[in-house]
Amino acid sequence: MAGNQRIILAQRPEGMPDENDLRLEEGPMPEAQDGQVLLRTIYLSLDPYMRSRMSAAKSYAQSVEVGSVMEGGTVCEVVESRHPDWQAGDIALAHTGWQTYAAVDPKGLKPLSPDDAPISTAVGVLGMPGFTAYVGMVEHGRPQAGETVVVSAASGAVGQVVGQLARHWGCRAVGVAGGAEKCRFVTEELGFDACVDHRSPTFEDDLAAACPSGVDVYWENVGGKVQQAVLPLFNEFARVPVCGIIAHYNDTETPEGPNLLPAFMRQVLTKRLTVRGFIQFDHADRRREFFKTVAPLVKDGTIRHREDIVEGLENAVSAFQGLLTGKNFGKLLVQVSEDPTRK
Amino acid sequence: MAGNQRIILAQRPEGMPDENDLRLEEGPMPEAQDGQVLLRTIYLSLDPYMRSRMSAAKSYAQSVEVGSVMEGGTVCEVVESRHPDWQAGDIALAHTGWQTYAAVDPKGLKPLSPDDAPISTAVGVLGMPGFTAYVGMVEHGRPQAGETVVVSAASGAVGQVVGQLARHWGCRAVGVAGGAEKCRFVTEELGFDACVDHRSPTFEDDLAAACPSGVDVYWENVGGKVQQAVLPLFNEFARVPVCGIIAHYNDTETPEGPNLLPAFMRQVLTKRLTVRGFIQFDHADRRREFFKTVAPLVKDGTIRHREDIVEGLENAVSAFQGLLTGKNFGKLLVQVSEDPTRK
Repeated sequence: MAGNQRIILAQRPEGMPDENDLRLEEGPMPEAQDGQVLLRTIYLSLDPYMRSRMSAAKSYAQSVEVGSVMEGGTVCEVVESRHPDWQAGDIALAHTGWQTYAAVDPKGLKPLSPDDAPISTAVGVLGMPGFTAYVGMVEHGRPQAGETVVVSAASGAVGQVVGQLARHWGCRAVGVAGGAEKCRFVTEELGFDACVDHRSPTFEDDLAAACPSGVDVYWENVGGKVQQAVLPLFNEFARVPVCGIIAHYNDTETPEGPNLLPAFMRQVLTKRLTVRGFIQFDHADRRREFFKTVAPLVKDGTIRHREDIVEGLENAVSAFQGLLTGKNFGKLLVQVSEDPTRK
Repeated sequence: MAGNQRIILAQRPEGMPDENDLRLEEGPMPEAQDGQVLLRTIYLSLDPYMRSRMSAAKSYAQSVEVGSVMEGGTVCEVVESRHPDWQAGDIALAHTGWQTYAAVDPKGLKPLSPDDAPISTAVGVLGMPGFTAYVGMVEHGRPQAGETVVVSAASGAVGQVVGQLARHWGCRAVGVAGGAEKCRFVTEELGFDACVDHRSPTFEDDLAAACPSGVDVYWENVGGKVQQAVLPLFNEFARVPVCGIIAHYNDTETPEGPNLLPAFMRQVLTKRLTVRGFIQFDHADRRREFFKTVAPLVKDGTIRHREDIVEGLENAVSAFQGLLTGKNFGKLLVQVSEDPTRK
């Protein structure tokens, strides 16, 4: 066995993270101590939240320390077990970060069976992103049948599920995505009622035309110009679950004017909007309910999903850069090593 | 009897309304038809919401039409009744606007007795502003004992009640007001735990010092720099009932940068804030509960209040201008004619 390939946070990025911030290095092969298991990473999940973990600024979770392996959700295979409950060949959902191997206490691991669902879905449609979509809609979006739900980053890991749940619950689902190909996927493959290309010069008009009855729920993944286009379309008592503001994650200073905050507050006031930031781990008590509700919908094809799998840990940084600029097409994963469950 | 003095919306104001927009004129004396009463205005309530009624822009209520008498809540005396339920000398809460007389169908009138409370309170602490405070806190602020509640425009009609209710419910109440005299009143007369002068050069630091445990509820009356000073102080899961954004009511264009919206959204996301616009009339079902709860607190002195009474309808426009710039000190009223219940 060679050493452990790992990507460490070498320094805190200013703006877009690059290979100087996230440095690939080879470390010693970890060894499983008594009670531990040695894991080989099959899939590393890349998610927008990771950008804030790279910064020192206070957020809802601890920053990654400079010099540490960058954190992240993973799907792993047990290569050696020194714990009675696990054996070599078992597949597990883990959080071992941007590296090829890790030796861990198996307490935090969740066993996965390829018979239930493709193992990669444990960090996608049936994992954190899917749960984010579900709990944000149930707790904060609260869509009623017949309402219009606008979903930014509609072809992404979370957005895909948000819109399909909205449809499943009887709403009109309108996606916003970048480019004709993504928009076609969102309507034709995922079954959204409409999808609008935010790169189009007629984007604002296109969005208004796609929402003839106004907007009752706006799923905020991005901020920026998509948010601005939705703002005049809100119906009274609309809800805005704020899941992310990816357009601003690399901001290094307060953006130039004009100052759009007063106009935003005016809409909040006159339309009586509810704008609610949230993070899935605040609602951990709904995880079982999520799985019971959504896993059958995935199995029977009601909820479809698309993965964007990048080969090799050495490509993780450029893949992550692409995630922050919308280059990915579907749930972004890095295939770090072979998936023994895929033929 | 002379004619009817009235202030009409002569044209829609650009920025701060003035006498060209709100024109005092003399009209014919209205006459009560069969089934109507003729009302003499004693008090005209001046409230910030009136600014948006002067604009054509869509808001939660119909704009006043150009050429019409400016609308507003009033406390009136019946001078002539052609309705069996009312007689001359009765006092009523009405909505007859910026004029000295009006002939109306009494269906929308609420009888007032000076034995219950001073009649002016029907447009103040026991009227729309007091109800706004109560319902905004109960429905949207949802303060828990021990939490810190920051109240902008703390010496104003709504703010006074918000902070005293917060205290009554076991919270720490921190006011923000303009000038040392108002701040002294807010702490010494109203009993807030602290009050910070937003005109002070050390305002941000003063506010932080007054909130050693952070901010759990921010009552938004103003927007602008007060909002900016509160933003870094929010605790997780803080609530922001948005009652008004008076700092921006006269904006004629989108303000210059920097663009403060992304930083605001970042706080919403990472602190999981709930920002909720509201208007009291959406919660009319709580009016009785409000009165039953708050009237005894006013009677026994738990909730105190201050009125700022300007004499004469001819001074209404300048008084309203002062309201939009914080010149008033307490609930602003115009005394349009003599109050027969005050000796």
